[in-house]
Formats: sequence, structure tokens, C-alpha cells
Amino acid sequence: MMNLLILSCGTRNKIVQAFKKELGDAGKVFATDCSELAPALYDADDYFIVPREDAEGYLEVILSICKENKVAAVLSLIDPELSLLAENRQRFLEIGTLPIISGYEEVEMCFDKYRMFRFLQENGFRTVQSYRDKADFQAAVATGQVTYPVFVKPVKGSASININKASSEAELDLMLNRHEGMLIQEFMDGTEYGADVYIDMISGEVVSIFIKEKIKMRAGETDKSVSVKDDALFGMIKQMAEKAGFRGIIDIDIFQVAGQYYLSEVNPRFGGGYPHAYACGINVPKLIFNNIAGTINEAAIGDYKENIYMMKYNEVKIMDRN
Amino acid sequence: MMNLLILSCGTRNKIVQAFKKELGDAGKVFATDCSELAPALYDADDYFIVPREDAEGYLEVILSICKENKVAAVLSLIDPELSLLAENRQRFLEIGTLPIISGYEEVEMCFDKYRMFRFLQENGFRTVQSYRDKADFQAAVATGQVTYPVFVKPVKGSASININKASSEAELDLMLNRHEGMLIQEFMDGTEYGADVYIDMISGEVVSIFIKEKIKMRAGETDKSVSVKDDALFGMIKQMAEKAGFRGIIDIDIFQVAGQYYLSEVNPRFGGGYPHAYACGINVPKLIFNNIAGTINEAAIGDYKENIYMMKYNEVKIMDRN
Repeated sequence: MMNLLILSCGTRNKIVQAFKKELGDAGKVFATDCSELAPALYDADDYFIVPREDAEGYLEVILSICKENKVAAVLSLIDPELSLLAENRQRFLEIGTLPIISGYEEVEMCFDKYRMFRFLQENGFRTVQSYRDKADFQAAVATGQVTYPVFVKPVKGSASININKASSEAELDLMLNRHEGMLIQEFMDGTEYGADVYIDMISGEVVSIFIKEKIKMRAGETDKSVSVKDDALFGMIKQMAEKAGFRGIIDIDIFQVAGQYYLSEVNPRFGGGYPHAYACGINVPKLIFNNIAGTINEAAIGDYKENIYMMKYNEVKIMDRN
Repeated sequence: MMNLLILSCGTRNKIVQAFKKELGDAGKVFATDCSELAPALYDADDYFIVPREDAEGYLEVILSICKENKVAAVLSLIDPELSLLAENRQRFLEIGTLPIISGYEEVEMCFDKYRMFRFLQENGFRTVQSYRDKADFQAAVATGQVTYPVFVKPVKGSASININKASSEAELDLMLNRHEGMLIQEFMDGTEYGADVYIDMISGEVVSIFIKEKIKMRAGETDKSVSVKDDALFGMIKQMAEKAGFRGIIDIDIFQVAGQYYLSEVNPRFGGGYPHAYACGINVPKLIFNNIAGTINEAAIGDYKENIYMMKYNEVKIMDRN
């Protein structure tokens, strides 16, 4: 039996469904959430309502669920929980549960946009120009390296919280004064792409890359997208992910401006657009199950068709509380 | 054969699915959209890609689809198209197609928040205090009738476009100066409800009301809700809808503050939360088909269970363009 636990499943029903389908009778898929109103709970074989991930004693609750249910591997679908899993890898391994997550340092780098920018720049990957210091930014404006408008966002921030566009120095000052620890980023006027990337957890090799062009966004998520392929971008992604030392599933945001690709953010978890990749045959649950079983996956980068469109719509889950 | 045409179906797959299920073999459900990337198109029996609803000659395109496909009834799922359908009712009736929509004046009232406010107030329905004139608003502030914060929104506006909260006169002035034709509305600090209401198109009587408490919103839409019943609110909604003379399906926003209900906006079409009502047995497609067949529906208000929760999640539609 190979039981899997998905933490903070929320509304990610498609992810739970995919794992259930691929696992079949070989084990059970369990899910947790802090709310009974997380619809993905009800697609799992069994579920647990747990405290919020920032509550005292949360880790112990998860560890005991893993132990009691012989959970072979655990993963989370929300950002605030990824560092916790990575930091406590050893405690999970001790009870026979493999956390599906990159190393702690790599996870922390993803949540510090300036550290990620420095890493990308120092290793020769084109990325979005970022400034933590207003003086540095002004010097770059003076030499024409960067021009308004620019984006102002928290160095450490998830989703689209507190992201604003500044069109002048006055607007910029207003935003910089409103919050601590802000980052100034150049505005990328081009096409946005997303990549779902799997780095084999045993070999450390990138074995799967799926690239989609984002056609329409809604509430910070990709609403419509189309599968594309590009050998140059495959190469750039493979090099970056292996250089950084990521493991398991990651999601990368990429811009294309004037024919050049720019790597932007990395989320060290399943991205909201993964159901597109899965529908195109990119079977990450299977890659994960192979790794849990000790099998190294063979590289099959770009093993999908181009011009496959994905369109999201609302499905509803009903719960009778009578 | 009783064919139905759903205009501008967009991502409303659940609506198309409900009509198909209820119609069965008795006819065909057709859908249109101006984009091939509208996922609901692919749940219909057949679909048509049409110009945008504001393009020249659009009405003629829709009329000819109705005529060629023996469409018995037509409805639209987007606001900008509702007036067009209501205004051209006669032209549709002449070719044997019944537009499922309220009268032109009623539709126009829904899209003018100040007219709707005046109608509700003059007819004794509690509603959200609204001011079109800053002097009137200031006089009300002076007498303590209204206090900051207030909402500032366009008198004629759809969705949540250009809605801002003003906490002071300085902020209010800024917002009033930014756009023409703004409305100042008191801030309702309470619980939000939504009602799916069907007014029989032959008798003009309200025959179905479903009320849900909104638990969580996302991108302007109800993301989680729970079914509730309240005879006082049923009565208030029935009176209002019949007094205004609405017909067919409408969606009403309601606030509850300090134990009192306040009627807010009316959308003279299927609301985004209708799938909740349908899952609770509120079969609006059937009420519509009865009306098309010339049958008057009998009133069955509140014919559903309380404490049924609805949670939305993303489903995906895939299209291979190779």
C-alpha cells in the first residue's frame, strides 16, 4: 500500500482526482484542510479537518496523521506550509513519510524575490530587473537601464497581495512608504508563460517540462492557456532548476519580451495551472509514485502536443449538513 | 421539438448542462459566444461563434440563427446583452422565438442603481441609502443619517468595476472627480444573501425563490454559500419582484444588518450562484420550458432544504486545435 497525504487541499479538486486516478487500488489518497468548506476534501478517499498551518502544535497533528495512516508521502498545495515541510523533512522521514518538497534553502529562496533575482542574475539567467534600494533604482533610471512604469511588491509575498504599479517617482514613494521591505521591479510588457517542471527526487535531473502560454488570467490564476514548446526555453528551465537544486514538482513564471525569455518567480509546489499539463499527458502523480517506490524516472521533456487549449470553468461540490 | 439558444455562454457550463439535462430528447440546446475559448460552448448540442454583442449587425446574426435552427426561446448570460433582447422582443416573437427576459423598462432600471434605489424606496422596501448628489450626501452626514466609510460606484456599472471605498471627504472627492456619474452608497456591515427568483412569464406571479447566505466571495462571484429560508424575506422578495413587474429568472443581492433585510441590486438574468439552487432542486430550466409550452407554473416558494452548502472549484475543458 502506498498512501498519500495532500495538505491544505482547498479547492484543488483536480489534483486530488489525478492522484486518486493514478494510484488506483495501490493505496489511499488522504487530504486535509482547516475548513470543512474545502471542496477537494470530498474527492479524497478520506479526509481530516486540522488546525490552521500557523497554529501551535500543527506539525504534531500532521505527523500523527501520517503515522496512524501509514502515509508514504506528503505534499502541500499552499505556500505558507512549504517551508514547514522542508524544514521538518527528517521528522517525516523518521516515521516513514517522504515529504514531496525541495530543500529548505531552495524553498526559502522562492519566497524571497530578491534572493531569487540575485540567484538568477549571478548564474546568467535572464530575469526581471529588481531593486531593493531606491538609490540603486534611481541610478538605473538615470542611465536609462529601467523606465517607468514599474511594479512595487513585497520582497516576501504570496499571490498578488500588495502589488502595485507606479508610473512616477511620487507614486513610487507613496508605495515604498506604505509597507516595509518592498521590491521595485521592471514592468515586463510581453507574453506570459508558465512551466510545470518535475525534478526527479532521486537523480536530481529535470525529467519533465510542460510549457503553456497564458491567454487569460482571473483572480491571479491562469484561466485560459495553450500548450507550447520551445527547445531554448526547455534548456533554460532545465539548467536553472538543476543549478538551483529543486526537487519534485515546481511551477515557474516566465515572460517573453522582444523574442527573449525572462525567468521570473518559482513556486516549489503544484501550480494552479497543472490540470492543463495533466490533461496533455504530463503525469506528475506517476513520477512521484515512481520516486516513492525508489525508481528513478527517465527524462521525457516536451512529451506532449502543442496547441492544446485549456479553459477553466466552475464546478460545484454540494454538502448536506442536515 | 423545443430548441433553446443560450447567448454569450462564456464559462457558464453548469447552466448549459442543466438545460440539456432537463430538455433531454425534447429539443436541442444551442450556445453562442464571441470567443472559441468559451468552455460552455462545448457542453451544448451545437454552438455558433458570433461577433461581439456591441458589433454592428449582431442582432441580425442572432435572429438568423434563431430562424434557421427553429429556436423556441433565447436567453443571455451577460448584462450588456439583456437590454438588446428586451428592446427587440417583438422581432424575436415574429420569427417564433421567445426571449426569456423582463420588459425593457425593468431591465434598464436594473442597470441604473439610482433608479433602482428610488423604486425600492418609493415602494417601501428597505434598501441601501444612495446619493447621486454630493450636497444631498453631505446634508445626510450632517444629520447623522449616514457615516463614513461609504462606497463610491458608477450609477450604471456592471460587476465590480470602479467600485471604491471612501473613508473621508478628501477620498470621496478624489473618487467623484475621477469619473462621471458616480453614486455614493452607505456601507452595509452585515451578512450578504443572494436570491434566485423565478417570475412566471405568463401569470407574472413569483413561483420560486431560493435564498443562499454568501460565505465567501472570489473575483466578485459567490465561491461558497449555504441555503437558508426566511418567510419574511420570501415575502419581501415576492412583493418587490411582482411590484416591479420582472419576468423569468432574476438574481437579487440582499444585505442583513442588525436583523433587518435590505434589498440591493437586481440582475435580470441567471446569477453566478444559480448552480447552488439547481443542486437543491430549484429547477428553473423546467419552469422556463413550461412557460415556453404555454403552461403556467404553480407557486412553490421555498421548496428546498436549508443547510445545503455549495463550494465552487475549477474544472477544465480541453480543446485540441491540431
